[in-house]
Amino acid sequence: MFFEGSEKKVEVITAPKAGSLRALGRDFWSGIVTRANAEILDVLSNEHCDAYLLSESSLFVWHDRFLMLTCGTTTLADAFLHFLAHINDNDILYASFQRKNEYLSHLQKSSFADDLARIGQRLPGSAYRLGKLDSHHHYIFHLDRPYQCMDGDVTNELLMYHIKGDGADYLRSPDQTPEGVRSLLQLDKILPGFAISDWLFEPFGYSMNAIKGDRYATFHITPQEQSSYVSFETNLELDNSILVATLLGALQPGSWDLIGFNARDIFPDYGDYHCMTESTLDMSCGFAMNFRHFQHQDHRIVQPEMISRKVS
Amino acid sequence: MFFEGSEKKVEVITAPKAGSLRALGRDFWSGIVTRANAEILDVLSNEHCDAYLLSESSLFVWHDRFLMLTCGTTTLADAFLHFLAHINDNDILYASFQRKNEYLSHLQKSSFADDLARIGQRLPGSAYRLGKLDSHHHYIFHLDRPYQCMDGDVTNELLMYHIKGDGADYLRSPDQTPEGVRSLLQLDKILPGFAISDWLFEPFGYSMNAIKGDRYATFHITPQEQSSYVSFETNLELDNSILVATLLGALQPGSWDLIGFNARDIFPDYGDYHCMTESTLDMSCGFAMNFRHFQHQDHRIVQPEMISRKVS
Repeated sequence: MFFEGSEKKVEVITAPKAGSLRALGRDFWSGIVTRANAEILDVLSNEHCDAYLLSESSLFVWHDRFLMLTCGTTTLADAFLHFLAHINDNDILYASFQRKNEYLSHLQKSSFADDLARIGQRLPGSAYRLGKLDSHHHYIFHLDRPYQCMDGDVTNELLMYHIKGDGADYLRSPDQTPEGVRSLLQLDKILPGFAISDWLFEPFGYSMNAIKGDRYATFHITPQEQSSYVSFETNLELDNSILVATLLGALQPGSWDLIGFNARDIFPDYGDYHCMTESTLDMSCGFAMNFRHFQHQDHRIVQPEMISRKVS
Repeated sequence: MFFEGSEKKVEVITAPKAGSLRALGRDFWSGIVTRANAEILDVLSNEHCDAYLLSESSLFVWHDRFLMLTCGTTTLADAFLHFLAHINDNDILYASFQRKNEYLSHLQKSSFADDLARIGQRLPGSAYRLGKLDSHHHYIFHLDRPYQCMDGDVTNELLMYHIKGDGADYLRSPDQTPEGVRSLLQLDKILPGFAISDWLFEPFGYSMNAIKGDRYATFHITPQEQSSYVSFETNLELDNSILVATLLGALQPGSWDLIGFNARDIFPDYGDYHCMTESTLDMSCGFAMNFRHFQHQDHRIVQPEMISRKVS
């Protein structure tokens, strides 16, 4: 029942002379997605963006940028390299490739170091780890080229681990529905007015893309008990919003990470969560990245997990 | 400069009719060590025990039991299976195989699950994980057979991560000496009257075995800055001893784990360390295992680690 929810992520911003990335068409993007070992399940579009829901996560394509997140044992570096083969280097204003710490990194098809060796041959860049190697951490590679971000070009990633309570039980139940999950996540409250595209996987798992104007949000839920993981990502600011408190309340994670790019600092009511790791990086490409790892005080006592048993 | 300090460990207790394990001789044990991809560097003996210092950790052989610890990318499961091929199953009273969480598990030659699949074909047993998959944790497989431990048959493992301060600087300096490391660790104070066998590795690293009667202690130090690790293991009780406080003071780890088998609980002055994980297992083989993970409150802020840089 193990599934690695932790995502790999690539984001690219292109110069106007590269033309619209949306105009490359669905076949082109389908080819990119295939390189990652995923496929397109659904698409949602508005005047700014095409939001593809994938068999393993999401792809958002705007005129001047794209963002792709994939989980499981997908090969996102392959997809990134395939994209780079189709674009002139000088047309790339910003590019980054991220990997979160995995539950079981030895089951991945490549390590971050492996990916870096291939991407680094193609693009000049810097790579960092934020957080501790022996706890939650986040790897990022970015193009080493100055870039002037637009106002409002922010990203927030909320990654929740070891969810529990009624919400977690519901996400592990056989009779869940998309409507039920939307209600649990209180989408109408936290993402009012957003168009939604979502998908329930068998036997478990839920993915959702949401867009409104040039804003996006995406959820990916891996509820499996011993390796549960819920990621939420958006270009909305989270300060003064009820979003973080709502999700922590609904999912009761034992621990969670918050990663921001040029994001305003937020001080929601963390309650009994304590910040265990904090790491900040001013990247030469114009984004300030902040990584924080929180643990709930009741997440201290852990029952041993039986892995196997064979009596003589 | 990366070196995986985290050890794998095997421990076996045999019935009197199996004969003395020491009598199997150095060639036999050298063969076992070779199967793990290690070699014998030094040996220390007394009336109870032969303590072999290895190129990657330690082997202790008593008449009725042995204990082997190996780090790096050693293949300890191979050594264990090689031993099992030389002994009648019914002569085994207790057997366990442990693995600590590694810094970079994907660089290992096998996972715990891989090892388990092979060992489980040979011995009936149970396997557990204590601690969180996404933080410090400890795997143990043990023979599923009731065993009545002798009084005083205790084990304590103190595993220290992210060491810093003058002690850590000294362990990373080119001019360190065995005498200097012994003085840093205050061996005369924490292990009074023990015979010592120790080794400095190039460019860094220190290993030590110590024996006194039927008591043993062993140190293995991997001081490398980004993946530092110091393990101390002994069958001494740690309660009412100055040992833990002395080592935490000398090495100032950012975090540490304490693992006990039938060990009396200890409450040293933990100062600014907080217990982040605690997990207890009553094993069917007669040992009660306790795992605790501690983090220093100043270990929250972490500088990003640059992994690579290539400017265009």
